[in-house]
Amino acid sequence: MDSKPYTFDIKLPGGIPDHYDNHIERRLSSMRGQFLDQKAYSERLAREDTLLYEVYEFKRPEIAGELLHGISIVHPGKVGNEYYMTKGHFHTVLETAEVYYCLQGQGYMVMETPEGEWSVEPLRPGSVLYVPPRWAHRSVNTALDGDLVTFFIYPGDAGHDYGTIESQGYRKLVMDTPAGASIVDNPRWKSPEERHA
Amino acid sequence: MDSKPYTFDIKLPGGIPDHYDNHIERRLSSMRGQFLDQKAYSERLAREDTLLYEVYEFKRPEIAGELLHGISIVHPGKVGNEYYMTKGHFHTVLETAEVYYCLQGQGYMVMETPEGEWSVEPLRPGSVLYVPPRWAHRSVNTALDGDLVTFFIYPGDAGHDYGTIESQGYRKLVMDTPAGASIVDNPRWKSPEERHA
Repeated sequence: MDSKPYTFDIKLPGGIPDHYDNHIERRLSSMRGQFLDQKAYSERLAREDTLLYEVYEFKRPEIAGELLHGISIVHPGKVGNEYYMTKGHFHTVLETAEVYYCLQGQGYMVMETPEGEWSVEPLRPGSVLYVPPRWAHRSVNTALDGDLVTFFIYPGDAGHDYGTIESQGYRKLVMDTPAGASIVDNPRWKSPEERHA
Repeated sequence: MDSKPYTFDIKLPGGIPDHYDNHIERRLSSMRGQFLDQKAYSERLAREDTLLYEVYEFKRPEIAGELLHGISIVHPGKVGNEYYMTKGHFHTVLETAEVYYCLQGQGYMVMETPEGEWSVEPLRPGSVLYVPPRWAHRSVNTALDGDLVTFFIYPGDAGHDYGTIESQGYRKLVMDTPAGASIVDNPRWKSPEERHA
C-alpha cells in the first residue's frame, strides 16, 4: 500500500482501470433470495451461474481519514422482469456517506434507511449521486444493451454490512414493465415494525 | 442541507454543475506572493484582477462520515512563465485524504508533505488521483487553450489550512519552458530545517 500520491486511468467505454489492487466478480449464485422471481432465478442458476457485476478496488488502510475507491460495472440483463443489480449494503459505521460518479450507462440507485425511508435516484453519464450517512444503497442497470459503470468513494472506516439489507430486502424494486423501467413496491418487504413483531 | 440522497449533473465541456450550493471565484489579488515572477504579477494586477479559478461546492455537515465534494475549474493562462494554479492547501486534520477525478483539460497536481517530500502527478480526462493523508495539494492548468476541470471528494471533517503552504511555498513549480510544461525547483522554497532555523 503506497503512502505516496498515485493516479490511474479509467478507460471508457468499459470502465476498466489501467491498474487496480483487487477484482471482484459477483455471480447469480451469490444473490440467492434477492430477486423477486425465485422460479426464474432457480431456472437460470441451473443453466449457468451468470456474472452480474464486477468491482475494481484500490486498497487503502481501512481507517478514518482515508477514502476507499473503485469502479463498479453492472452488466445488462434481467432475472424474470427484474434488472441485474448489486447486492447493496449499509455501511457498518452507519453514519458514513458515499459518493458515486456515473461514467457510462443508465440505471438507478435504490436506497433505504433503517427506519424504512426510501429513495430511488437516476444514474446517467455525468451525474453525481450523494448517498448521505445511514442509507443502504444498491445500483440497478436498466439498459439492456450495455454496462452501468460508476466510480465510487467512501470513508476508509465505513465497512460493509451486507446482511441487514439482504435479510429484510429493499422496499422498492426496479422492474422492466410495458411502460419501461418502473419503480415498484417489493411485496416481500417488511416494515421495521413487522420485522420486530 | 438535505439529509436525503441527491444527484446533480456535471455538464461537459465546461464542468458547471446544473445546481450547487456555493460558487467561489479566486482572482489574481488573492494569490499575492504565490507566483515566482513577482514583477509580472504586480504588472498584471495593476491592469486587471484576473479570474484564475472557480469552485462549485455542495454543502454538507463538516463532520467525520460526511464527504465534501465539488468541481474545480482552473482557467488557462500564465503569470510570467508560470501556469495558472490554485492556492492549494493542507487539510487542517492532516490525516485526511482527497480524491480527484479529472473531467477535462491537462495539468498537474503538485503535492508536498510537511517534511518536504514532494510529488507531481499528471491530470488528464479519465484519470483519478489519490492524495493520501498528509499531502498538501495544488492543481496547475498546463493547457493554454482550455480549462482544467476536476471533481473532488474529501472527508467532512478535513478542513483547509491555506496558511502553512502559502507562507512556505511549494518545493516544485510548473513552468512553461521551451521544452514544454516543466517541473522545476522553487528557488524560494525553504526546507523544514531552514524554516525552523
